[in-house]
Amino acid sequence: MGAFRAPWYGRRVPGSRVLPSGFRRALAAIVGDEGVLASATDLAVYECDGYTLERARPELVVLPRRTDEVARVVRAAAEAGVSFVPRGAGTGLSGGCLAGEAPLMICVSRMRRIRAIDLANRRVVAEAGVVNAAVSRAVQAARLQYVPDPSSQNACTIGGNVAENSGGPHTLKYGVTTNHLLGVELVLPDGEVLALGDGVEETLGYDLTGVVCGSEGTFGIVTAATLRLEPLPEAVTTLLAIFESVADATATVSGVIAAGIVPAALEMMDRTIVEAVEAAYGFGFPTDAGAVLIIEIDGPAAGLAALEDRIIAICHAHRARSVRAAADDAERAALWKSRKRAFGAVGRLSPSYATQDGVVPRTRLPEILARIEAIATRHRLRIGNVFHAGDGNIHPIILYDERDHDQVERVLAAGREILAACVALGGSVTGEHGIGVEKMQELGLMFAADDLEVMRRVRAAFDPAGRANPGKIFPTPGGCSEQRLPRRQAAS
Amino acid sequence: MGAFRAPWYGRRVPGSRVLPSGFRRALAAIVGDEGVLASATDLAVYECDGYTLERARPELVVLPRRTDEVARVVRAAAEAGVSFVPRGAGTGLSGGCLAGEAPLMICVSRMRRIRAIDLANRRVVAEAGVVNAAVSRAVQAARLQYVPDPSSQNACTIGGNVAENSGGPHTLKYGVTTNHLLGVELVLPDGEVLALGDGVEETLGYDLTGVVCGSEGTFGIVTAATLRLEPLPEAVTTLLAIFESVADATATVSGVIAAGIVPAALEMMDRTIVEAVEAAYGFGFPTDAGAVLIIEIDGPAAGLAALEDRIIAICHAHRARSVRAAADDAERAALWKSRKRAFGAVGRLSPSYATQDGVVPRTRLPEILARIEAIATRHRLRIGNVFHAGDGNIHPIILYDERDHDQVERVLAAGREILAACVALGGSVTGEHGIGVEKMQELGLMFAADDLEVMRRVRAAFDPAGRANPGKIFPTPGGCSEQRLPRRQAAS
Repeated sequence: MGAFRAPWYGRRVPGSRVLPSGFRRALAAIVGDEGVLASATDLAVYECDGYTLERARPELVVLPRRTDEVARVVRAAAEAGVSFVPRGAGTGLSGGCLAGEAPLMICVSRMRRIRAIDLANRRVVAEAGVVNAAVSRAVQAARLQYVPDPSSQNACTIGGNVAENSGGPHTLKYGVTTNHLLGVELVLPDGEVLALGDGVEETLGYDLTGVVCGSEGTFGIVTAATLRLEPLPEAVTTLLAIFESVADATATVSGVIAAGIVPAALEMMDRTIVEAVEAAYGFGFPTDAGAVLIIEIDGPAAGLAALEDRIIAICHAHRARSVRAAADDAERAALWKSRKRAFGAVGRLSPSYATQDGVVPRTRLPEILARIEAIATRHRLRIGNVFHAGDGNIHPIILYDERDHDQVERVLAAGREILAACVALGGSVTGEHGIGVEKMQELGLMFAADDLEVMRRVRAAFDPAGRANPGKIFPTPGGCSEQRLPRRQAAS
Repeated sequence: MGAFRAPWYGRRVPGSRVLPSGFRRALAAIVGDEGVLASATDLAVYECDGYTLERARPELVVLPRRTDEVARVVRAAAEAGVSFVPRGAGTGLSGGCLAGEAPLMICVSRMRRIRAIDLANRRVVAEAGVVNAAVSRAVQAARLQYVPDPSSQNACTIGGNVAENSGGPHTLKYGVTTNHLLGVELVLPDGEVLALGDGVEETLGYDLTGVVCGSEGTFGIVTAATLRLEPLPEAVTTLLAIFESVADATATVSGVIAAGIVPAALEMMDRTIVEAVEAAYGFGFPTDAGAVLIIEIDGPAAGLAALEDRIIAICHAHRARSVRAAADDAERAALWKSRKRAFGAVGRLSPSYATQDGVVPRTRLPEILARIEAIATRHRLRIGNVFHAGDGNIHPIILYDERDHDQVERVLAAGREILAACVALGGSVTGEHGIGVEKMQELGLMFAADDLEVMRRVRAAFDPAGRANPGKIFPTPGGCSEQRLPRRQAAS
């Protein structure tokens, strides 16, 4: 690729884990004393996100209230040569907001203002700390919604969603965060505030909004986003189909898609997950079923009944034990609650669990599930599957006990084998959880050195000094992320 | 923004208009003699695209047949210090593929192979020179389609669509090119071939596919794209509504959107355009109407009649003279042909015309149309309007005679005023036609210096030496694009 190297490429870890004296006071002068956390107790919360296999505690957490405070904090960090990691609600699943090589964590949880609601043009400007579900609630009365709905939508923030390009069950029909993002306010690592995207549907110049989305905090800090609203569908029907085997359920998924139907959501849970969910929420799933599908369709009321009939017929053609529609909104909500809290429910089965995230072409679902089963057997692990079947986005959940070192090693090995299998089947090593620290080694499975080099250069275009979330996505040469981070930096 | 400068920033025009001796022979050795055009007659075709206000003839046009030939041509150019401009079918509307500062034009029109059709996973890999409409034709039998449908879809190519992030009438419901793009094969300006995007729905690492889409050939040459296919809708209804005034028609647009309806397309033509279209194609439009709307809805057959009734009621509530549905596929096709060939039809009214492209929030449509009328009056110009009303994407067409120098100056002035008015109303200076050479000065209306600086750095990440389409999007410092290009470099 020629001799060009990004300015920071080849340097050792940017910044240092040791903060200069007076730095904490300087930050408190910007955000107030209550906006700086430094005690071991306060910091314990921030030592990992939803990916708990690796942990690293920041030296300081700062909680700015407004964009100008973020810019001043970042500028102070730049002057002191301190690198930083942005954080939203910490619900990420790949360790993207792990402190790692950065001593300073900048958390946007106090930036919770919806700055503007423009119903006529269907858009909202929300600060980074606004909780995902709060956006839809704010426009519900106008029968509008913000579509992306990660399972953590009652906790996760818009800033985190943009950083991770979050998906959710309704990705199948409606796309992920980037498909609903009209603009971004980004504080660059030198403290400049960029307004990217023009807030209208079409982009102008390079689509920097698009490339910021999913950049996992390595380009700077997203402080606000302009989000597109969509009308609530006139009618929604949610079907629950019960199958004797995972094979029948995946064949049904293929059958539905092949029939030219695009459901709003098409989710699968296997027996392990159904058991856990049933134990936790008692929805009424049959725990002897091999797999269940949740199939949601939406649109104009008049067309829905006919579509429902077609889907039911496809389910029966693939030996469904039963198919029925949620009777009312309450039952529909209960069904989705079971699905969306499946990860939490798994905690009842096992002290720890690791959620994998991979993608295969939809037609390869039966193969990847068979391979996962074989991997589980080989490593003597229990693996449950709950996932966005319609997009081929799998989420094997590996159950384990983190106190058992040998088990942890087997979990890590099984995880890598699953991702390699996704690639071998023509898929990808991450669907919606991002790279973070978890998938850095897997990037090499997907991309040639030249591809990665261009990515590094794009990163350097935003962050020439390499101070934003160092050691994520790509290892910092010479940085501690070239080895795996220590699994647990300090006992809390 | 600190001291970082892209490597080429501040340099004079990269490369030279004078080609080194032996260069033409070297290219012919790669692509064959018939793949290199150098005669004045052959080159005349390539001196502009659909934006005819500025022209510049390349020194050489090279027509590679495969990606490896593109890579070898680009490598030869790099070694000779020659800059290049990529070109598809030349249907662009902002001069993006004008030779300008680059002597070498690399045209992908011989790369017309559809490499793979994967019906089960609904994706196609098409080479850059494949004509847009050919993709949908190739998958029609499976009742699938490639959705983005620029008006030039029978001529424009996938490579050009990706470079310009092309839209079309169905953008309203289905999004633009970037929303249907799963991956891109890109030849970098140093000859490396990148495979971006993983061909599945979710992105991995930075969304470089997304930022390449719309980069107008300034990152290298797109040689192939993985495109998402969508099922053909079960049913389609196309309505034609006739109004006495543009104001009633725009109020109807707002009314439809406010009712929570997302039509597949929602297009407006004003009296000037209707007259031209009627003279050219004789569809049967009433030429005394103030404006017409084409409203297309699609989806499951069962729901469509009710939706049609609601839209008809909204039209009548805004004083529509008449509303009727196309009787059959043939009438529907004739209606769309009239709309899509409107630009061509205008040629009957006037020797030349300039198509503008701007965006306003939908609710500001009446205001922008009033302003356009005032601008037309002030500059003594006739301006017709045909546009994607549903997205607020306007296309004023300014009629003029290019032999009249004074008129040309007034066209340029009116064009700038219209775009400034779009910005003043909270919109953008380009909807779907790109920046090219036409809009370079307007970029400054939309972006602060810091924003532009980051864009320049991202460009440098792909093209450190500044050899891909120099002088487009951003003026090359010291390059001839800092002034406007000469309107017509040589009489053909």
